[in-house]
Formats: sequence, structure tokens, C-alpha cells
Amino acid sequence: MNNKVKITFLGGVGEIGKNMTAIEYENEIIVVDAGLTFPDDELPGIDIVIPDISYLLANKDKVKAILLTHGHEDHIGALPFVLEQLNVPVYGSRLTLALVENKMKEHPKVKFKGISVKPRNVLKLGNFTIEFIKVSHSIAGSLALCITTPAGNIVHTGDFKVDYEPIDGEMIDLPRLGEIGKRGVNLLLCESTNVCRKGFTMSEKSVGRALEEIIKSHLQNRIIVATFASNIHRLQQIMDLAEKYKRKVAFTGRSMINVSEVAYKLGELKYNRENIIDIEKVDKCDDKEILIITTGSQGEPMSALTRMAAGEFKQIKLRENDLIILSASPIPGNEKNVYNVINALYKLGADVIYDELADVHVSGHACQEELKLMHSLIKPKHFIPVHGEYRHLKVHKELAMTLGMEERNIVIPSLGMQVELSPNSIKQGGFVTAGQKLIDGIGIGDMDSNVLRERKQLAEEGICVVCVDINNVSGTVSSDPFIITRGVVYADEQESFVQDAKAAIIASLKEQDLRGMEPSVIKQSIRRNISNFIYRRTKRRPMILTIVTLD
Amino acid sequence: MNNKVKITFLGGVGEIGKNMTAIEYENEIIVVDAGLTFPDDELPGIDIVIPDISYLLANKDKVKAILLTHGHEDHIGALPFVLEQLNVPVYGSRLTLALVENKMKEHPKVKFKGISVKPRNVLKLGNFTIEFIKVSHSIAGSLALCITTPAGNIVHTGDFKVDYEPIDGEMIDLPRLGEIGKRGVNLLLCESTNVCRKGFTMSEKSVGRALEEIIKSHLQNRIIVATFASNIHRLQQIMDLAEKYKRKVAFTGRSMINVSEVAYKLGELKYNRENIIDIEKVDKCDDKEILIITTGSQGEPMSALTRMAAGEFKQIKLRENDLIILSASPIPGNEKNVYNVINALYKLGADVIYDELADVHVSGHACQEELKLMHSLIKPKHFIPVHGEYRHLKVHKELAMTLGMEERNIVIPSLGMQVELSPNSIKQGGFVTAGQKLIDGIGIGDMDSNVLRERKQLAEEGICVVCVDINNVSGTVSSDPFIITRGVVYADEQESFVQDAKAAIIASLKEQDLRGMEPSVIKQSIRRNISNFIYRRTKRRPMILTIVTLD
Repeated sequence: MNNKVKITFLGGVGEIGKNMTAIEYENEIIVVDAGLTFPDDELPGIDIVIPDISYLLANKDKVKAILLTHGHEDHIGALPFVLEQLNVPVYGSRLTLALVENKMKEHPKVKFKGISVKPRNVLKLGNFTIEFIKVSHSIAGSLALCITTPAGNIVHTGDFKVDYEPIDGEMIDLPRLGEIGKRGVNLLLCESTNVCRKGFTMSEKSVGRALEEIIKSHLQNRIIVATFASNIHRLQQIMDLAEKYKRKVAFTGRSMINVSEVAYKLGELKYNRENIIDIEKVDKCDDKEILIITTGSQGEPMSALTRMAAGEFKQIKLRENDLIILSASPIPGNEKNVYNVINALYKLGADVIYDELADVHVSGHACQEELKLMHSLIKPKHFIPVHGEYRHLKVHKELAMTLGMEERNIVIPSLGMQVELSPNSIKQGGFVTAGQKLIDGIGIGDMDSNVLRERKQLAEEGICVVCVDINNVSGTVSSDPFIITRGVVYADEQESFVQDAKAAIIASLKEQDLRGMEPSVIKQSIRRNISNFIYRRTKRRPMILTIVTLD
Repeated sequence: MNNKVKITFLGGVGEIGKNMTAIEYENEIIVVDAGLTFPDDELPGIDIVIPDISYLLANKDKVKAILLTHGHEDHIGALPFVLEQLNVPVYGSRLTLALVENKMKEHPKVKFKGISVKPRNVLKLGNFTIEFIKVSHSIAGSLALCITTPAGNIVHTGDFKVDYEPIDGEMIDLPRLGEIGKRGVNLLLCESTNVCRKGFTMSEKSVGRALEEIIKSHLQNRIIVATFASNIHRLQQIMDLAEKYKRKVAFTGRSMINVSEVAYKLGELKYNRENIIDIEKVDKCDDKEILIITTGSQGEPMSALTRMAAGEFKQIKLRENDLIILSASPIPGNEKNVYNVINALYKLGADVIYDELADVHVSGHACQEELKLMHSLIKPKHFIPVHGEYRHLKVHKELAMTLGMEERNIVIPSLGMQVELSPNSIKQGGFVTAGQKLIDGIGIGDMDSNVLRERKQLAEEGICVVCVDINNVSGTVSSDPFIITRGVVYADEQESFVQDAKAAIIASLKEQDLRGMEPSVIKQSIRRNISNFIYRRTKRRPMILTIVTLD
């Protein structure tokens, strides 16, 4: 009997984001997560990046289900694009599915069948049996997976932390993880985001305590808290404090309004509806009676907080008596936007408290001691670190080795890698197609596309278009060449630049006998000529487009 | 008698970098520092950013000197461009001037007259008397200034920290700062970089101790340390450790070779020349006998370490027995490059230690407790926080107020602001022209230039060039329109895109009576038409260039 299980890494390894892993036995594949990443500055004009799922499409009939560990974008964001090509049921917690449903509204043509599961639920899918296990994370409804396969048990932690003071009273299910460990786990797939951080991630409750101290010492101020809409437990704490300190709560920002409503309806966020006030009516209340919860903690350009800071938010005009709390850390890459917003808020005279100044945020990911706890409970035979850049995976491997695991039982995965798991061994197999798909406008493109290369050159150097009309019989330039540049010459130098460039082209063409010459040869000569002219003049090498017409 | 002194902020306030302050009395101006900043992603293709010195140029005859606090780029980097337009003597420590001289080699036509000063030296410049005061910082030869003016004493801290275990044995001159404070200081200009950080910055020596621990536990490995070339005290510690552990030192990276040589000649960096080995000869030695000091701690794309990580560094091929220490923190904005290099190093099998994993770096700037010490020693009547974004300046103001300073004695400066200092008062005056000058290729441009706007649009959306030749008499399109796009259409869609676009243009032109129509009107119609066509097809709005020729 074949008892080999193949694990294919389609995202989230060697990188942060777009998490996606396929687990395969004979004719069955189950997929864990389908996330996106946001593009960096190397990808101008790109909206989002999703995993390349060629492998799943080539094995379309095998794919039985997508299992979601939680509702963050790096775990669910690629779903609309994946489901468009691969119609399979999607399993996840109620909150996770509600967030997916919200997202699917923008993709009305894509079919979505969500099936909700609860912690300790057991799901049978062909040869796989999946148990869902409650974990703590910065979004409610987060689940780890224990997948029983013909090659033994595989535990996938999803994203997690260990929080001994959970806001909803439900701790990460350490007892169950311990039981599963005792029963025997062949392979642990464990997240690595915070593996470089020593110690323990603080409890979410510590944020509540810090916020209470701040609110207590600002009883007369109007208070505005910016945080992640999906951090339901953070919202819960803020709303509890609002009630305790007799402040009405106004939500603002599209995702904040959406998510708080969804979470309320699911019972994940509990509050007295009478304590909510419409943002339009805030101006009629005393400052000390109001607490506004808003999006924009990452300084996102169009978010409510950014617009408030710019004085462009109709319902709320900020003033000296306002206290703004950014209950979040800047995600790497967002620092500049966040600090711009903070600077703008200060300039309006408002007071601002953020993570550098007070403990108003904690991470949702396990630090070293929590990871050690997970390894020690699960006691796996084999280990694959996931969710991290190579350096995270490497440090996580070393952490596992300090706990006694042998190097040969660990595989550091990379994009597209297949790993073969048998009851008593793990083996790195080959590679399948995997990588980035870029979503931009309505197109899906590739990383190495011409579009991207061209945009980069345009951004760095600009463009120069040259049109020359040549009489092929007389071998002369029929009319003045057209020259247009963008991103090359400053406005006040434009005129003299164009004149000199024309003269240079005409002079160089005069030196040659153009009669009967191939347009492509003339083009090449013009291109070389104008490129050198521009370099001498500006030290730039813009993209050159030449158009030669022959009379 | 007039005893008003004007202080004009030309850079380094409301921003990090390009520090420059002018201090003016009647017909005399002295300038403190002339720094640059490096552009962020909002400025594609720009090399460096320097202060707008229109104010100094308008008062050319008044400017008597430029005083440099230390040799970092954000304090000296604009000098070549400033001296080109303003030929005045430059004062600074020997190391600072040596670094400037190095930089001036790339600007051979610019005149540079440097006059070196030592701590406690006193310089008389017209109505100003300047005393230079030794401070600790992440570069040797750092000086604070006490400027005696007709409006009283002004202390400018430059960049500083308080290090009780200085590498060169010379502590920040706290006794002198205390004496000056006792004599009476009217205005303190104090740096604010780390004002949001609690406590004290660790001593530079703590880095040496951490490095020794690492070297001691890697006796068999080849060791490569990447750090800032200008951090002479860091280099000194690394070289001392190399000698102690019997390793020969090889320098690599242009600035590392330059600066170590300059510092050696000045006696700022002390080592036995016999202990140096050429990088070419490293391969012939045992791993345990070698320590390489390299540039590239910021993951700079062309640096030695980055090239080693990419396997493109001729003299050094990295392998499993190599230990790379990044003795630096990523400067905000460089994180991605740094982590890319770390990931690449790990993938080569080398071991990597960086600031997240061990205490191999300390900041060069004063944290809150050190700033309090400075305020307490100087006991100024008036205070202006400098070197920081608005949030830093604001937090620094609050720090001064907790120490007992009254709010009316503090001014938060912004770019171009003039402040009037009298013996007993401080007053915010008007604003002069100030801002960013962008250096790119050989040109100096403005922030709001067309070049930059155009590049941004090109990067985000691409470009489409349309050439149409029209017979003005018959009112028909004479030949097939030319259409070229860049950054818009993926290669495999190009052909059908161009065909359809041509058809769309021809169809729309056929609907109109073109006879005698102005080219500008035809152009507009084509532009609208093609823009809508492209948007429908790609959801992009590229820049459109239309060229209409009439037969």
C-alpha cells in the first residue's frame, strides 16, 4: 500500500504573505489557505500579488477543498481569483467565511460555497481527516489544523500566538494540541513570522490595560482610536472601555463599518447597540462623550484617519482637544505613510499616542518561547517551518534543533517545492511551477512581464519619442522631426532641448546616404544618435521610441 | 544697539536629513552643516536631495563660513553643490574635512577651503565667537557648537550621544557643557532623532563585547563583518579583536578602503599595518586567520556584501564555513534590501548574525535620558528642537516642558522658518524660500517638476504613442496609424491590441468630417478615443502621446 503524502508549497515560504500549501494523497488534494501579498515598489502599478496555481489547475480534478486557517488577507485574499478557476468548497470558521463572503461581493460572477466549522470539529475528506483546533491570533476565529493522512498526522499551526488572557475567554487549545502530540504527529508545519524575537508575545489584554490608562488620563478629550478592522478582540476591548467610561462609539472607514457589523451579527463582537452613534452626529456631542474607532492605522492614503489628518474628512474636523491613538504597529514598508499621518495629526494640534510612545499594540504571532511550547506539545517526527522569509525558516530550523530534532528530519521549503512524507521519513522531491501572479486593472500578469520591465525603465529614465519623415527617393528628411519627451527634460529647458535634438538628428542623417536605406537601419541610427545626445545633455538614458515614415 | 540674532532653518526640521541652519547677525551669516538626504520611492530616478539655498544666495555677501558638526552625509553631503554657488571657508574636525575632501574629488571644479578645528578651539568670525565641543556619536570627530552672539550664547548639539566608555578614550565634554550652561545659554538647538526612545543608548563598547563573544565562539570560521565605513570606532574595535584573535584584516568596498585609509593617516584609526592583507590574497589563507571588513550593511545594491551574497564578487566566494556579521541596523527604508541580502547569504549556507539576533549595533543618537542630561547641563532660556520629523520635535518639546521649561520659550521650527532671538525673548518670524532640490544626472530640479510627475505616471500606467497621418483635403487617414505602447499590454496580447486600437481610431475618425479641421482638435479626439479604448480593454489610463501629421 502506498502511504506517501505529497506536500506542495505554493506560497508563504521564502516570503511573507500569499500563504498556500497543497497536501496530496493519490487522487486527492486539499489546499490550506489562499492568500495575497501587497506589491512593493518594485512592482509599479500592480494592485495585488497572488500565488501561481498552475499546479492546482493541472490537477483540477484532484482538488477537493480549500481549508482556511483565518480571515487575514494573506490567507484568504487570493480566493476570488482561485475560485474563478477552481470551483471547490471552502472550509473555515464563521468569521473567516463571513469576511470571504464580504470580499466575494466584488466578484459576483465567481461561485463561492463556504462551509463553516468550529474548533474540535472533525471533517472527513476522502482519505484525509481534518480536525480544527482553536488558536490565539490577532483575528478571532483562527484555527490550526490536524490532518490525519495515510502517512500519519500533519499539524499545520496557521498563524498563532499563545495568549493566556484571551478576550473571548477561549484560550488556544493547548490541551488538545498536547493530546494530538501524545497520539503522535509525523509532521509539523509551523509559522515563523516572529521566530527572530526572543521571549513571549504579550497578551492582547495588556493592550486593553494600556488603553485604559490612556483613556483615564484623557477624560476631557475626544478620543479617536485607529486599529485593524479585523482585530475583533481589540475592538471588543475598546468598546468595553467606551462603555465603562461612558463614551458613545462611532465607527468610520469602510472596512471598520463592514467588519464590526459582520462580527456583531455573528456574536463575535458584543456591545449594546444603543451605545453606537452615527459619525454624522458626533459633532453635536461633548468631546468627553465620544470615542471614534477608525481605519487608517497603516496610514493608507484613502483611509478615514489619513483623510482626517489632511483635513479632508467631512464628518470629523480634528482640533486641539482630540487624542488620537494608533493601536497598531506599522507593517514593514508602511512606516513612511504612518509617520506622515502622525506628523500631520500633530500639526493640527491634536495629541497622538502610538506604539513608539506606549504599549498600545501587540503582535499576533508567536515569539521564540511560544514556538518552543508548540514544538514541545506536538513533538513531531518531522518539521517544516513555514510563513517566513528564508532567514525566518532557517532560524526556526535552528530553534527546532536546539529542542533536540535532528537536522535530517527538517526541510526548509521554497516556492514550488514538493516534499514527500512517509510514515517514517521525509524527502525533498522536485519542483512544480509556482511564483507570483500580478493583478493589475483587470489583467493577471507574470513577474517577468514586459509591462513591468517597461514601467521600471519609464520611471527611472523617462521616454523620448522621435518621428522622422524621410523621402526615400531624394534621401532627405521631408519635414521637421517630431520630438516629444516625458520624464526627461525640465519644462524650462524643453524648448531649447527639442531644437538642439532636432538639429542633431538632421545633422547626423545628412551625413548618410539614405536613398533606398531600410527603415530599420535608419531607425537604429536615429536611436543611437538621440540616445547619445540626451546622455551628453542630461546624463539620462530614457527609453527611445523612433517612428520612421518613408514618403 | 541691535542685539537680535536671526536663525533660519534650511533643512533637517520636519524631516530626517539634509541638515542646514543659518545664524545671522546684521551683515553676517554663519551656516551650520550642509547635508543631503537620499530620495524615497516617491522620487524615481533622483540620486540625492539637497536643501534649497535660495536664501543664502540672495544674501551671498553676508555668508562668512560653513561650520560642520561631523562627517555624515546628512551633514556634509550638499557641500559640493553649495560651494559651487557660494565660495566660503568650511570649518570642521580633521576627520570631517578629510571626508569632505574625498567627496570633492568628484567635483574637481568646485573650490573648497577647509580649516580644521579641535575640541575647545575658539573661532572668531565677525560678531560671532564659536567654541567647538567634543561629543560622542557614531562617527569620530563629532563636535557640538557654542556660538556666542550679540543675543547671547547659542548651543547647537549637532548629533550626539553620551558614551561613558568612549573607544578613543575621549568622552563627550560634559564638564565643558556644564561650564557653558553655568555661564548662561540663551538658546539650545538640540537634535531629536531618538527622542521617542526611553532610557539611554548603549555604549559603543557594548558592541565590541558582543562581537568578541561571537568571534570567540566561531574560532574556526572565516568572519566577514559589514558595517558603516564612517564608524571609525566600530572599525577600531573590530580591528582590535582581529589582532587579539590573530586574524588578518582585509578591507573591501570602495568607501571602506577610502575611509579606513583616511582615518589611519589621521591617526583616528590605529592598527598595525602588517596585520592588513590584500583581499586578493584572502583565498590563500586559512579561514580562521581571516577577518574581512566590508561595506554593504544596508544591502546597497552595488556594495561588496550584496555582490558576495549574489555570488558576483570576484575575490570572495562565500561558503558554509563563513560567518557574516551585519554590525548595523537597517536605516528605515532599507529593510527590504538588507533582508534580501541576509536571505541570500543564508541560502549560500553561510551563517549570519544581525541586529535582530544579537546586540551587534548601537545607535549614535541620544535617547530620552541623554537628552535630559543635555538640557539639564545647558539650562537654556529658550529651546528649539532640531533634526527630526514634526513628531520628534513635538515630543522633544514635551520633554523640555517636563524639565520645567515654559511653552512660550520653545519654538518648533519648520522649513524656511526664521526665528528672532533677543537676549530675553524668542519670536517666530516669517518664512524664506526653502525646500528640496533634486539632483539627478547632472541636473538640479525642483520637487514639483514636470519630470517627476511624468515619471510617476509612466511608472503607474505606462505610455501609448499614436501617430496618425491625415490627408487634409480628402479628410481621410492616409496610411495605417502607428501605435506603440510601453508598460501597458502584455507581450502576447500586443498584436491583437494594436490591431483593435488601429481599427478603433480609424472608425472614430471616419465618423467625423476631418477636412480643414485643426490638428489640435483631431489630436484631442484621437486621445479621448484611444484612452477610452485602452481603459475598456485593460482598466489602465496610460499617458497618451498623439502625433498628427497632415499631408
